[in-house]
Amino acid sequence: MSQHSSQPLHRIGVFDSGFGGLTVLQALLHHIPSAEFLYLGDTARLPYGAKSRQTVARYAVSAAEFLLAQGAQYLVIACNTASALALEDIRTAVPVPVLGVIETGANAAKAHSISGDVMVIATAATVESHAYSAACAERDIQAIEKACPLLVPLVEEGWIDHPITRQVLHIYFSELLTQAREAALQPDTLLLGCTHYPLLRAEIEATLPPSIHVIDSAEVTAAQVAAAIKLSAAAAPPPPPRFFATDSPEKFRRLGSRFLGQPIQHVELIELESSVQP
Amino acid sequence: MSQHSSQPLHRIGVFDSGFGGLTVLQALLHHIPSAEFLYLGDTARLPYGAKSRQTVARYAVSAAEFLLAQGAQYLVIACNTASALALEDIRTAVPVPVLGVIETGANAAKAHSISGDVMVIATAATVESHAYSAACAERDIQAIEKACPLLVPLVEEGWIDHPITRQVLHIYFSELLTQAREAALQPDTLLLGCTHYPLLRAEIEATLPPSIHVIDSAEVTAAQVAAAIKLSAAAAPPPPPRFFATDSPEKFRRLGSRFLGQPIQHVELIELESSVQP
Repeated sequence: MSQHSSQPLHRIGVFDSGFGGLTVLQALLHHIPSAEFLYLGDTARLPYGAKSRQTVARYAVSAAEFLLAQGAQYLVIACNTASALALEDIRTAVPVPVLGVIETGANAAKAHSISGDVMVIATAATVESHAYSAACAERDIQAIEKACPLLVPLVEEGWIDHPITRQVLHIYFSELLTQAREAALQPDTLLLGCTHYPLLRAEIEATLPPSIHVIDSAEVTAAQVAAAIKLSAAAAPPPPPRFFATDSPEKFRRLGSRFLGQPIQHVELIELESSVQP
Repeated sequence: MSQHSSQPLHRIGVFDSGFGGLTVLQALLHHIPSAEFLYLGDTARLPYGAKSRQTVARYAVSAAEFLLAQGAQYLVIACNTASALALEDIRTAVPVPVLGVIETGANAAKAHSISGDVMVIATAATVESHAYSAACAERDIQAIEKACPLLVPLVEEGWIDHPITRQVLHIYFSELLTQAREAALQPDTLLLGCTHYPLLRAEIEATLPPSIHVIDSAEVTAAQVAAAIKLSAAAAPPPPPRFFATDSPEKFRRLGSRFLGQPIQHVELIELESSVQP
């Protein structure tokens, strides 16, 4: 018992294909300051968005196994593609609770939408999976989804508060609202279905009619993780988050800070074994 | 001897991380209609641009070995990142001639530029490698390079002839021409250092001053391969190109046709073994 209680009480593993999941970690650090966090970005194999279900599942399971081996007692899948395509594979592979950003986003949409009609913007791969509309349908709300493939590169270019970004958002939302009208839906909620999009939240809210409520999946995921776990009172502040990447720690440190909202001091380079048998 | 002459006389392997290299294959089919082509897109692991030199070299060598095993007698590295980071590794690994798009682009810049000052646009990874400026310097011409990370997603979004794309090009070229002026250069040539960019050639030429000559690396690579190889007279027309991808043949077929400029009928899914030892 004594050696058990000397273990950190809540070590939470956060997984994404790259840096975007750091927006989720930022929200988690705010909501659960007493937990210890491990963040893994599979940067050598990003983006998952262009890959098949089978490949994404193989990669995501190896990442989950790595975090488990590092002592994670709870896993947050902060990658929309992995949540869409591989959540069940991960749950089968590891014996700890696993929460994915798509279900937390759908839960929040259910809680916020009065009309029961929601819009989702995401990468092409997430939209093609129809994971958000399926998760919304399970909760008796209807979702229309739109792929916005230019938004991630605009964020990565640093064009956050930029006229081009506003025009691109205007085009995307005009198309999305037309799509909603044609489907006879009355959406009152927009779900940000990609972890890069919280950085564009102010621009997105400025582009949309004020009647549309914007749900940031990073924020709602952190709130739901905080509600799901019972934290023991911590005797001392937890150690700082540990960061793992499968490629270029220096680049992770440099680019990741923008998504985390604070400097990243140290990133450990790891190799994930593929589970493919030749 | 007789079984030797029954071999295809020129089987050329073309390698890229994805679809972009199909612009090079399109030009090769035009310039060398009597050759047999094998095209490999490492779509499971694209884009190479965000990966370290070591990772890109490992992936590119495994791709080159695959093409060699399929009987390629000549390799064209149509991927700028692999040409920048892994050309020597590939040349060491395979016993056939290997030509990369960066050296062919630099050769063409040398041939076309009168002032000896050229501009190069490319992805962030290619620019960070400074492979174009190094290749130009070896040929006694001076290059300034600019990363244009939005152009690939704009092409992939299909916004080829689009006001947003024109504005983005205008911003990028204003910055590039300012950069040239500050460096006291008088560029007369722009090198398209990414295989996606030939699809934007008309927009690029319309945005630039008419005094700037645009070099399309797909076109000049095909011309240089044609000049380098001696083709035997073919008794019969060659078989159509064979296409290999490491992920989602259906997606390759669908998206690749735009880059090839003609329909793609069949794509073979392959697995590349990583040469990493656990």
